[in-house]
Amino acid sequence: RINGDRLWNSLMEMARIGPGVAGGNNRQTLTDEDAEARDLFQSWCKAAGCEMGLDSMGNMFAMRPGSDPDALPVYVGSHLDTQPTGGKYDGVLGVLAGLEIVRTLNDMDLRTRHPIVVTNWTNEEGTRFAPAMLSSGVFAGVHSEDWAKDQRDAGGKRFGDELRRIGWEGEEPVGARKMHAFFELHIEQGPILEAEGVDIGVVTHGQGLCWLQVTVTGRDSHTGSTPMPMRRNAGLAMARIIDKVDEIAWNHAPDAVGAVGHVEVFPNSRNVIPGRAVFTVDFRSPDKGVIADMEQHLREEAQRIVDEMGLSVDFEQVGGFDPVTFDKGCVAAIRDAADRLGYSHRNIISGAGHDACWIARAAPTAMVMCPCVDGLSHNEAEEIKPEWAAAGADVLLHAVIETAGV
Amino acid sequence: RINGDRLWNSLMEMARIGPGVAGGNNRQTLTDEDAEARDLFQSWCKAAGCEMGLDSMGNMFAMRPGSDPDALPVYVGSHLDTQPTGGKYDGVLGVLAGLEIVRTLNDMDLRTRHPIVVTNWTNEEGTRFAPAMLSSGVFAGVHSEDWAKDQRDAGGKRFGDELRRIGWEGEEPVGARKMHAFFELHIEQGPILEAEGVDIGVVTHGQGLCWLQVTVTGRDSHTGSTPMPMRRNAGLAMARIIDKVDEIAWNHAPDAVGAVGHVEVFPNSRNVIPGRAVFTVDFRSPDKGVIADMEQHLREEAQRIVDEMGLSVDFEQVGGFDPVTFDKGCVAAIRDAADRLGYSHRNIISGAGHDACWIARAAPTAMVMCPCVDGLSHNEAEEIKPEWAAAGADVLLHAVIETAGV
Ligand SMILES: NC(=O)NCCC(=O)O
Ligand SMILES: NC(=O)NCCC(=O)O
Repeated sequence: RINGDRLWNSLMEMARIGPGVAGGNNRQTLTDEDAEARDLFQSWCKAAGCEMGLDSMGNMFAMRPGSDPDALPVYVGSHLDTQPTGGKYDGVLGVLAGLEIVRTLNDMDLRTRHPIVVTNWTNEEGTRFAPAMLSSGVFAGVHSEDWAKDQRDAGGKRFGDELRRIGWEGEEPVGARKMHAFFELHIEQGPILEAEGVDIGVVTHGQGLCWLQVTVTGRDSHTGSTPMPMRRNAGLAMARIIDKVDEIAWNHAPDAVGAVGHVEVFPNSRNVIPGRAVFTVDFRSPDKGVIADMEQHLREEAQRIVDEMGLSVDFEQVGGFDPVTFDKGCVAAIRDAADRLGYSHRNIISGAGHDACWIARAAPTAMVMCPCVDGLSHNEAEEIKPEWAAAGADVLLHAVIETAGV
Repeated sequence: RINGDRLWNSLMEMARIGPGVAGGNNRQTLTDEDAEARDLFQSWCKAAGCEMGLDSMGNMFAMRPGSDPDALPVYVGSHLDTQPTGGKYDGVLGVLAGLEIVRTLNDMDLRTRHPIVVTNWTNEEGTRFAPAMLSSGVFAGVHSEDWAKDQRDAGGKRFGDELRRIGWEGEEPVGARKMHAFFELHIEQGPILEAEGVDIGVVTHGQGLCWLQVTVTGRDSHTGSTPMPMRRNAGLAMARIIDKVDEIAWNHAPDAVGAVGHVEVFPNSRNVIPGRAVFTVDFRSPDKGVIADMEQHLREEAQRIVDEMGLSVDFEQVGGFDPVTFDKGCVAAIRDAADRLGYSHRNIISGAGHDACWIARAAPTAMVMCPCVDGLSHNEAEEIKPEWAAAGADVLLHAVIETAGV
């Protein structure tokens, strides 16, 4: 069994970097705080005897050698970046549980046949730079590195420039590493495990996602002196489309969700009718056909809304992935580990996207989930219990040992 | 008659300061560009022989002395600040037409009995610091100076600190000056005069306004893993309220207008359901009862919307003024001037708020309007014809001479 106190203390120490305003974290990707978190993680990995690797997307790899020089490593990990008002566990738990496995194996003086590599994937959250899971996506060959490095934040800064600025651009080619398997532990970010009192979620599938950036164009004009019939109010059209996103998602519930998280109107002045509105729709479902259906429906409805108002609308897909089915062998290793350790468990579908969803294309992959309080995530109040974290890390340890051999 | 070319050249020269991105201006109040515009205006006034005054709200006063030492001055003017994506004429025409009157009287070597004072009122637009017409409001005793100076922009900067920073805080007490009368020339910012082919709008009344800042509070959570029934989506409630604002305004049209120009959601991340939304409703009508009715209605509807969704809502009035009836004598002076000069004219109600709306409380006041292309304003494409500007300034000149005496 892993050392639950040590894991918890590491989580709390990491959470000091990039504190939020309400007890959580603001440690967005490629900020100075991200660099500080990487330094701390690296120092811990080195102290645990790992060899460090760094690729040109800033993905970090901490290797604990195995006994068989020809065996491919078993990878574990997640991400250290957070939302602007994020929690202390989303991603971080998966990385530090990987480290805790290494520390535990060191304590036990146990050498696995396959090496074990703990990873920190760059820009999982996708807030500062879309899309989410950007660097695991490049690793898995989904995006080109050039394209990824050319993504820009709201202030116009390039991903590639910011990666270099914080000093974490490595020389290793992205995706060159071959994996025996990949495991990711993550908090559920939804309410099911806690509500059912189940210790462990055995993740069999992941939802797919479509991020559509919608731009409505109307005409800026004066809120006071423009008669109602002459208005071409892009903000009003946006409001109607946001309501439609909700309606469309409900029409497919419980097999789909939908919302708009990101909104901008221009010029955003109290006495100017917005001439332009830009916002991002997030549709998800475990069923690819449902996502396509929702997207199609939204495009039609949005077009109808703007036509009625004399405006125009454009769509750009700024993120997306298909639903994932995880590797049967890896999933079984997790289920068996939970059984062996005596933890209650159930199969679960991940509602969120994870680095594991991309890595599943490159190697046999599965995920372990532990509960989180009220299913709340992407919120500074995100909370878990130390024993939930420990159970998740224990299952991860056993699945990894099983897969890496002794 | 005034010199139309000189007026137009001055307008074009002023428009070089704080250029926009699409042919208009971004010269928001208390920015470096505002300071530059003030410098230019002051240098022109001094060249025209005016004595400069500056009060502690940064209101500028350029006096051309009269022949009677006991006669109170006739004031003319408007504002040099613009919207973030504003036009070249909104406000600026009224200030530079005042200067053009002084220049014309100099050319004619005509001394009026009452002095003439050209004013530039600070922060008319209300974009950077709410409310609009802030400093004419302090002048008229509507707001206290302390309160006004404590207003903050989106970046948290205080009005008073920014006024000092740009070097335009004067020593003169605000509102100490007594006025014989106040006249403001302004572009219509609406479509009526151009559509009817009328040269001059004789402004008899101004619409009243209510700015309500609405804050909806829900709960941040993950867009992917939060089941639809568990969402407390503040952005969705905002969307429904924005639609309701439009519906309420239409229910009172053509005697009312309503829109939302300013919108923010938090944390504004693509994969976070917004836990908070803050936006500003702008309702206007020439009828005070209609404004009160719309506000009441909106408060009820917004409460109903958030109650249904399990959210909460708060309202704060961040701007407002009652409908104004301008001084009969000053209005007649404008109408008579238009008649005498042979310009077509009609009575009109101002759809926008103006410094004249507050000054009307302190002195006999009226406004002249000239057409603008397509009724478009608060847009960089705002446009007028040189001959429209000249006609407006001519009428202003004659109304001022009539009122100031010779
Ligand atoms: N796990 C997680 O929150 N990932 C961010 C990408 C997503 O929006 O699902
Ligand atoms: N004239 C003008 O645009 N004033 C700004 C204040 C308002 O919103 O009416």
